Amino acid sequence: MARARIAIIGTGLIGTSIGLGLAARKDREYEIVGIDKNRGHVREAKKLGAIDREAGSLEEALKDTGLVIVAVPTMAARQILKDSVPYLAEGAIITDTCSTKADIMHWAAEFLPETVNFVGGHPMAGREISGPGAGKLDLFHGATWAITPSPRADEQAVNIVLGLIESLGAIPLYIDAAEHDTYAAAVSHVPILMSVALFRMVRDSQGWEDASFLAGTGFRDLTRLASGDPTMSRDIMSSNREAVLHWLGRLEEELGNVRRALEVGDPVLTDLFASTQLDRDTFLTNPPQRRVPEGPETPNASDTMRRMFFGGFYDRLKDVTNKPGVDRNSEELRRRLGIDENGNARN
Amino acid sequence: MARARIAIIGTGLIGTSIGLGLAARKDREYEIVGIDKNRGHVREAKKLGAIDREAGSLEEALKDTGLVIVAVPTMAARQILKDSVPYLAEGAIITDTCSTKADIMHWAAEFLPETVNFVGGHPMAGREISGPGAGKLDLFHGATWAITPSPRADEQAVNIVLGLIESLGAIPLYIDAAEHDTYAAAVSHVPILMSVALFRMVRDSQGWEDASFLAGTGFRDLTRLASGDPTMSRDIMSSNREAVLHWLGRLEEELGNVRRALEVGDPVLTDLFASTQLDRDTFLTNPPQRRVPEGPETPNASDTMRRMFFGGFYDRLKDVTNKPGVDRNSEELRRRLGIDENGNARN
Repeated sequence: MARARIAIIGTGLIGTSIGLGLAARKDREYEIVGIDKNRGHVREAKKLGAIDREAGSLEEALKDTGLVIVAVPTMAARQILKDSVPYLAEGAIITDTCSTKADIMHWAAEFLPETVNFVGGHPMAGREISGPGAGKLDLFHGATWAITPSPRADEQAVNIVLGLIESLGAIPLYIDAAEHDTYAAAVSHVPILMSVALFRMVRDSQGWEDASFLAGTGFRDLTRLASGDPTMSRDIMSSNREAVLHWLGRLEEELGNVRRALEVGDPVLTDLFASTQLDRDTFLTNPPQRRVPEGPETPNASDTMRRMFFGGFYDRLKDVTNKPGVDRNSEELRRRLGIDENGNARN
Repeated sequence: MARARIAIIGTGLIGTSIGLGLAARKDREYEIVGIDKNRGHVREAKKLGAIDREAGSLEEALKDTGLVIVAVPTMAARQILKDSVPYLAEGAIITDTCSTKADIMHWAAEFLPETVNFVGGHPMAGREISGPGAGKLDLFHGATWAITPSPRADEQAVNIVLGLIESLGAIPLYIDAAEHDTYAAAVSHVPILMSVALFRMVRDSQGWEDASFLAGTGFRDLTRLASGDPTMSRDIMSSNREAVLHWLGRLEEELGNVRRALEVGDPVLTDLFASTQLDRDTFLTNPPQRRVPEGPETPNASDTMRRMFFGGFYDRLKDVTNKPGVDRNSEELRRRLGIDENGNARN
């Protein structure tokens, strides 16, 4: 009997952390395969126990695989979606971890056959170091994980991705892709630019050495995002440029407000610091509550977990693995891909 | 025989953390007294074991005390220096933890008698929460602790403050007060303003609730400094305004550079992210090395520790405690303070 299989495409920080979480399930009955354009990364992920096996090719990774997790920067994810088409099993579930969601949803709709289920995802977690060695079993514990299902994805597929998210200890958040990108620009993408600007400001100053001696946890925390993967950052800015430029303008305005408070002095200055401390503490201790929608759109977490690991998920993966090659024989797929009856994709 | 005594003025985050470190020394032969204008804070510090005893007044805290640690915001520190004058023991060592150093050095020279030793200090460590409950034994472990001795402070006094710093696990850095303030503005004070601006930008936007759901570790880290004590932040900006405004202008320029990179796109954008990642990683793994001066200005850490806890420090504190009231009988002090022969200070 074929084993259920999960494929992780990209075994950097995020892919490896996902793999560590999935591999840690003692009751698991699925195999985890991994692939990365950086062979060293996939070998390290295997050594760390994040994957069971390295796939030698995208075809090998995707063949008969029920759940595909694309954990690479946005532009690379675009290419992987394109390249995956000939190999995706019918009914397979594909999810991603890209920092922007509108583009990837667009590409999924453009490239992927209707026989597969694309469920966009974005874990709001990271570290200042990258690569598989930075992977952590608990990287996603308590983190928000945005989920943007495609209209075509069926409910069971969405629930399986929810189960994946919850099994990693994260909190799923349904959100529209465009809305995600607008707000992610404010809370995630512009902060990257702030980190870069602050670091460059000090690093490029004549007093860099002396300043560096004084740099403590504040400087380190505020420049942390400047150590992120440059390709990821570039892709984020390219695929969310308009929103990022909007919020960058807003940030400049806020810095102008701060400057004026400095110039005016008290009581404006103390009020600014005191109200911001209060607002932020309230955000930390009593954050805005999500209005969770009622009904079938709100799967029960433990149901989803059970389904994923013991019930529907396993059955689903088994279903897929029992129908090898079905994807390449579909008329719909051949049309979409422009492949011949022998299943050879034209590249 | 009188016990050697250390006084901590201000038992918030910093004062309590210092007390916890000093109290943890099993071999200690000194008493730690604490005082805070917030009585709840000093009681909590005592409960936490950061101080042995609450002093009922500044006089009680300072009388016969060998080492005084002023751990309050800058403007409050100014007042404490002024108010302390009648009570400081001859030969006492006074240090502080203020975030700016030029003003406090100026005030120490202006207010304090020549019979005491002022050694300015600034631990480059903090937390996003304040108060004694936030105090941590290891808050200063590995942190830089700037030290700005007054020209009048004798070498032994400086060594005792060095011993204090090193016993808390921090790394002392000799620096000129003005130079400290210039660079602290870049790596510490402007980052506070950045945190405030970023938090306000998102908090005051119409999409705050939705954005808050997506806010992950990046947003939390980059806005951490906005939760700092408002009085401390206000004092920092007031006492280092010129330097802060200078660096704020530089930050705005850097954000302009980042904006241009976004508009131009690659290869400029990727180059910016890649070179900044490289530079920051180099800073973390291989930071600029301090050119440590040779000779008596470089006390050996273990010597200093030994001196502080077993040798000179204890002797020194004992000396002081064996000469109660000597300060108030000094002609020099009476002149400076305008007190009468009975030692009654005119307030």
